[in-house]
Amino acid sequence: MRVAAYRKAHFNAAHRLHNPKWSEEKNKEMFGLCNNEYYHGHNYELIVKVVGEVDPETGYLIDLKYLSDVIKEHVEKKLDHKNLNIEVPEFKDLIPSAEHIAFVIHGWLREQLDSKYDLQVRLYETPRNFVEYPA
Amino acid sequence: MRVAAYRKAHFNAAHRLHNPKWSEEKNKEMFGLCNNEYYHGHNYELIVKVVGEVDPETGYLIDLKYLSDVIKEHVEKKLDHKNLNIEVPEFKDLIPSAEHIAFVIHGWLREQLDSKYDLQVRLYETPRNFVEYPA
Amino acid sequence: MRVAAYRKAHFNAAHRLHNPKWSEEKNKEMFGLCNNEYYHGHNYELIVKVVGEVDPETGYLIDLKYLSDVIKEHVEKKLDHKNLNIEVPEFKDLIPSAEHIAFVIHGWLREQLDSKYDLQVRLYETPRNFVEYPA
Amino acid sequence: MRVAAYRKAHFNAAHRLHNPKWSEEKNKEMFGLCNNEYYHGHNYELIVKVVGEVDPETGYLIDLKYLSDVIKEHVEKKLDHKNLNIEVPEFKDLIPSAEHIAFVIHGWLREQLDSKYDLQVRLYETPRNFVEYPA
Amino acid sequence: MRVAAYRKAHFNAAHRLHNPKWSEEKNKEMFGLCNNEYYHGHNYELIVKVVGEVDPETGYLIDLKYLSDVIKEHVEKKLDHKNLNIEVPEFKDLIPSAEHIAFVIHGWLREQLDSKYDLQVRLYETPRNFVEYPA
Amino acid sequence: MRVAAYRKAHFNAAHRLHNPKWSEEKNKEMFGLCNNEYYHGHNYELIVKVVGEVDPETGYLIDLKYLSDVIKEHVEKKLDHKNLNIEVPEFKDLIPSAEHIAFVIHGWLREQLDSKYDLQVRLYETPRNFVEYPA
Repeated sequence: MRVAAYRKAHFNAAHRLHNPKWSEEKNKEMFGLCNNEYYHGHNYELIVKVVGEVDPETGYLIDLKYLSDVIKEHVEKKLDHKNLNIEVPEFKDLIPSAEHIAFVIHGWLREQLDSKYDLQVRLYETPRNFVEYPA
Repeated sequence: MRVAAYRKAHFNAAHRLHNPKWSEEKNKEMFGLCNNEYYHGHNYELIVKVVGEVDPETGYLIDLKYLSDVIKEHVEKKLDHKNLNIEVPEFKDLIPSAEHIAFVIHGWLREQLDSKYDLQVRLYETPRNFVEYPA
Repeated sequence: MRVAAYRKAHFNAAHRLHNPKWSEEKNKEMFGLCNNEYYHGHNYELIVKVVGEVDPETGYLIDLKYLSDVIKEHVEKKLDHKNLNIEVPEFKDLIPSAEHIAFVIHGWLREQLDSKYDLQVRLYETPRNFVEYPA
Repeated sequence: MRVAAYRKAHFNAAHRLHNPKWSEEKNKEMFGLCNNEYYHGHNYELIVKVVGEVDPETGYLIDLKYLSDVIKEHVEKKLDHKNLNIEVPEFKDLIPSAEHIAFVIHGWLREQLDSKYDLQVRLYETPRNFVEYPA
Repeated sequence: MRVAAYRKAHFNAAHRLHNPKWSEEKNKEMFGLCNNEYYHGHNYELIVKVVGEVDPETGYLIDLKYLSDVIKEHVEKKLDHKNLNIEVPEFKDLIPSAEHIAFVIHGWLREQLDSKYDLQVRLYETPRNFVEYPA
Repeated sequence: MRVAAYRKAHFNAAHRLHNPKWSEEKNKEMFGLCNNEYYHGHNYELIVKVVGEVDPETGYLIDLKYLSDVIKEHVEKKLDHKNLNIEVPEFKDLIPSAEHIAFVIHGWLREQLDSKYDLQVRLYETPRNFVEYPA
């Protein structure tokens, strides 16, 4: 009985899209308002998808309380109420676009979860813009 | 022209997560508050996904009014305002976790729908916890 | 600067609508499926509204983190994953309708909050049915 | 780094489901209220999914501002506040069911987007009825 | 114990904003796309608010199942899948703006409900535009 | 015919809650994570409520397209993708709490709108925390 289970979480953060190898002009042209040197921010909504076989003893694919605790400890604690560019080492040389944030979160969770589970991360930067990794 | 069509439905029910082969202690440890012997409950939201070829005569994959009626008759009538553990025979020996409820709903709908359609069920136990079967 | 501040919370519970002074027939007629003797349940969404003057030192009407902690301690702990009829003393002689649950929650919060604040409670039993106390 | 990026948009339109090859009776039987000769309408919600490789220079799969502009120009301008049956040439001989509208929107966007991207369209006719093309 | 109880409903309809006393130019200028002579449409969401005293025998302000039936019979049946300008007599000489539709719905419901209840109607024309009557 | 009309808008911004008259310790204690010196951010959702008499010539209380344009010009342009503490003069000596932001937005809109309209602003800092001014 192969199922997917999903858990929703959220965090608020500031960020700036900026490529240090480019001129100010090229950055402004590419990233527009998102290039603001003083930062802007979002309420990020995160949906973590885990896929695998249901355990007949519990009826669970994975204990979603446990998954929620893993997300709190390994994602929210690192990102919530942070400035992604300044305070999160993973974005020292990586532009904190939604795509890259989803990739980084996926990496953090992949380390914590048993390899028997498939894992996918969906990240809403706004209710109108969102990404998924892996596709 | 292969498409997916989705129909949303909902039902309210009480349930308890409990494995009768286990001690009280092990049940409490595994299921926490969800093991409450007096039950608790949810507003379940159900999304039924049907996949197949569009009929060029109607522009429909499937008449969603018909699909809605099938869900009312074969899912809502059996689950809405029920105690899943006591009143739904399928959960006599099956823990009514979201995963198992989705599996049971899928079985009921699979029997009703033409085999030319692929079928997947998504079940929200809360807006933050949800499952899909098959994955 | 008089403002309103709102905080959203949620809890899941089982309940049954039943007036013990009435016959089974009258209960069934009045409460329909909600009268089910084995209970059913809901994901209740709660919105607490506090009204008063903003503190110019903090920019806050009330610290919403504090309000959230009060709700957790004095509402969620008492109601979440409970059977309202059996496990919540306030409903021993009070039918746990949405109206009455909102009234009880209001009473619990009123005791905790400074009397300088006005207080109103909105309770969603489902996304389609909800109540407010006081009106 | 293969990801999916999504952009949400919306438009309001009137339509009527009617097969001119059929009798009035058969149309009424098949399409019910949706066959109303004077039209009815919807707030359509559109979610466009693009899949491909992230550009390491920008952190973007695709500039969602650009995607939003493409949707405005090539979808919203053609459909928003229109009568689909009368004013949109694509539906001259194609019933404007949700399935067909999604198919037509997919075609319009496919012409605009680089072939390196995979493309999928989800269309909500109501919050309870929605479709996806391709499945 | 004075409370408010709310019930949500919805209907889909086509309409056109047009003042027959004005020139085509003035209509276009005032109403823009909403003046389209071929109509456009919406998924209207309706929230009906009833205010009064809770009945201690039932715990209800009003039976929301009954209120829902009244809305179905006296609002949805008249408006759902209709062309408001052509098929709803109340809009023969009244522009079917959201404000006027809310006013008309309020009148229909006011006739059905006991005068001991206060009544207010909120109508969403889109998720971004909505009105309330009376204010 | 006195009605209320509402228009929804949104903007993304970075901010920091900090009272310069206080010690670092007192700021941390009062504002917690929101005091982060490197800022954090939100997707703010704004709902503007206008109250008054319907114009029988148009069926409008106020043209919501016009109201939307006023919000774009006088609110979004000033706040969207900004650092509220650094880039918005109104917050030079005013802590950018949700309460204060709502107050400032209300002032900007009050200047633009005809005095015949009553005006209220609701601001969501997150889906769980929101404020209204005036109460």
